[in-house]
Amino acid sequence: MTAFPERILMGPGPSTVPQRILRALGAPTLGHLDPRYIEIMDETCVKLREVFMTENRLTFPVSATGMAGMECVVTNLMEPGDEAIVCINGVFGARMAEVMERAGVVVHRLEVAWGEIFTDEQIAEEVQRQPKAKVLTIVHAETSTGAHQPLEGISKIVHDEGIMLVVDAVTSLGGHPVKVDEWNIDAIFSGTQKCLSCPPGLSPVSFSPAAIDVIESRKTKPQSWYFDVTMLKDYYSGKGKRAYHHTAPVNMIYALREALEIVLEEGLEARWERHAHLHRRLRAGLESLGLSYIPEHSLHTLNCVRIPDGADDGSVRARLLDTYGIEIGAGLGPFAGKAWRIGLMGHSATQANVDLVLAALVDCLE
Amino acid sequence: MTAFPERILMGPGPSTVPQRILRALGAPTLGHLDPRYIEIMDETCVKLREVFMTENRLTFPVSATGMAGMECVVTNLMEPGDEAIVCINGVFGARMAEVMERAGVVVHRLEVAWGEIFTDEQIAEEVQRQPKAKVLTIVHAETSTGAHQPLEGISKIVHDEGIMLVVDAVTSLGGHPVKVDEWNIDAIFSGTQKCLSCPPGLSPVSFSPAAIDVIESRKTKPQSWYFDVTMLKDYYSGKGKRAYHHTAPVNMIYALREALEIVLEEGLEARWERHAHLHRRLRAGLESLGLSYIPEHSLHTLNCVRIPDGADDGSVRARLLDTYGIEIGAGLGPFAGKAWRIGLMGHSATQANVDLVLAALVDCLE
Repeated sequence: MTAFPERILMGPGPSTVPQRILRALGAPTLGHLDPRYIEIMDETCVKLREVFMTENRLTFPVSATGMAGMECVVTNLMEPGDEAIVCINGVFGARMAEVMERAGVVVHRLEVAWGEIFTDEQIAEEVQRQPKAKVLTIVHAETSTGAHQPLEGISKIVHDEGIMLVVDAVTSLGGHPVKVDEWNIDAIFSGTQKCLSCPPGLSPVSFSPAAIDVIESRKTKPQSWYFDVTMLKDYYSGKGKRAYHHTAPVNMIYALREALEIVLEEGLEARWERHAHLHRRLRAGLESLGLSYIPEHSLHTLNCVRIPDGADDGSVRARLLDTYGIEIGAGLGPFAGKAWRIGLMGHSATQANVDLVLAALVDCLE
Repeated sequence: MTAFPERILMGPGPSTVPQRILRALGAPTLGHLDPRYIEIMDETCVKLREVFMTENRLTFPVSATGMAGMECVVTNLMEPGDEAIVCINGVFGARMAEVMERAGVVVHRLEVAWGEIFTDEQIAEEVQRQPKAKVLTIVHAETSTGAHQPLEGISKIVHDEGIMLVVDAVTSLGGHPVKVDEWNIDAIFSGTQKCLSCPPGLSPVSFSPAAIDVIESRKTKPQSWYFDVTMLKDYYSGKGKRAYHHTAPVNMIYALREALEIVLEEGLEARWERHAHLHRRLRAGLESLGLSYIPEHSLHTLNCVRIPDGADDGSVRARLLDTYGIEIGAGLGPFAGKAWRIGLMGHSATQANVDLVLAALVDCLE
């Protein structure tokens, strides 16, 4: 077997995966129609509903990494010629516009500067300007900037106009509150490799009953067969026949089940508070080193700071990796070479890691 | 951790995964841009080229299960309005037609009965009838029927007419010869969970230089962002910058790397011969029990036999599973309730398993 270096993953994901999840991942592969596997899948979906805080029947992990969840949501909810308001304040809002356009959707871009968030007033104005919009999409946790977008006010505004709310929660689920039912979210997607600390490879999604109504009244078939939930929903909902659609990624489901179990053992509230507390500790330390945060409303789970004058981006990150085994993230897009992204996600969010990365930065910035 | 029953996987996939691969799967998760991970990915692609018997630069595992490979090939090669000849002799040919139509392709269906294969003459006639066809797609190993389609003659016929050849090798790669360069295949996809005995979750694909030319001269963007190889090929080819596209399924890549290593240690020729030899042993045993094969040209890797009169499909399979821990496959489509599919793939293809499944069938059919 090949050699693996020891790493502490404090970038934008994956986060460090606990041994318990790695052991679950390496359990014997069962057939995807084996009665015991079906039970494990059902258990996984039940736990996923708890973590998403939803009763949505159609809540399951898409069999591919995080961006596939975005594509699954778009492919199923939207038909060619439909209109969407896409809120863009970083890479992942822009990505959504791109995925929408490939699906033939007329995209209305609502943009604010990278690192900023949207106000209720901006959303209310745009919703008025676009009376034909079917959905509004917004990024709850923008991984490219660390901005943390409040959703409750926005949800009321869009639903008052009969528009559905689609949320990208890739970097928040399991680290920040994500209250799908309370916030009335119609479709949401996340990833396993961020605050759930499961290896990358699955994308949890959830669709509201209203979203399912829209999907069931489509005039056209979704352009993707692989992501078509009309063929998957019986498999994952526990209703009807467990017909074969595609071979499920069996071992990744074992790992996700274990990861969700760990989240629920800790408790959602306690887990959010751990991330909040360690973010405050990290932030105080970074600011005392003269590193300033880019977003005014920062995520706890991803800390995006300006690279100080005189520091060389690549050599600092290389030294962190080589000397300390610590991975942090580079800036993306306009922040390339200008920002670092320090993740505090799931199993990586410990006081030991916070104190170590601060000590390592002191050393590397000398 | 949850309890797992012991299974011997002799269905249509997944096959039994060796401990060595499960251990590789459970190795520590690295970041997808970690220099060591990039090396592991490069090693994986090098080995994949060896197993596909190709020099194709664009040879990599799609980050999703087997059917995603089909969708990746269609999405990249085809544009709306393009024409395709789709050869259908089972579920997976029909699936290809469906995926093509969702991509806006004009599909010319060439059908023979389930379980039969296509003759060179049938292909030659159809190619003459469809002068505007851009590709011809065919299933090398039809998992729903066990039919084994020869490809060399067909490849010459389609290329003589300037048509590209697309091959579904999900159930043959690693069990039967799949000679991508020698057979002049333009695009091919497979799965990890069949004759490679890796868990499900990835879909190896390979595109010829001619296919890349077609992709690079597209007039429209592929409808899928997730499967768009124009954004992936720098990442996987070792050329250019390793830009972020999506988070790779890191641990699944570890497992695939190990699975390919095992294939190459055994040697392709020896592996094909093992599958051939054990197929003959199984076939002799099944036929002596009065079980007849459905396809005249049977795969070695999947053995599709008629359920004998008087035997109850569900109760025999349940007894095999409960008493012997053996999973075999049910029939699909018109063969539901009429056929069993017994897989001899990769790690499951042993003399012990052949003799055990025969003994177990004797017991269950009494």
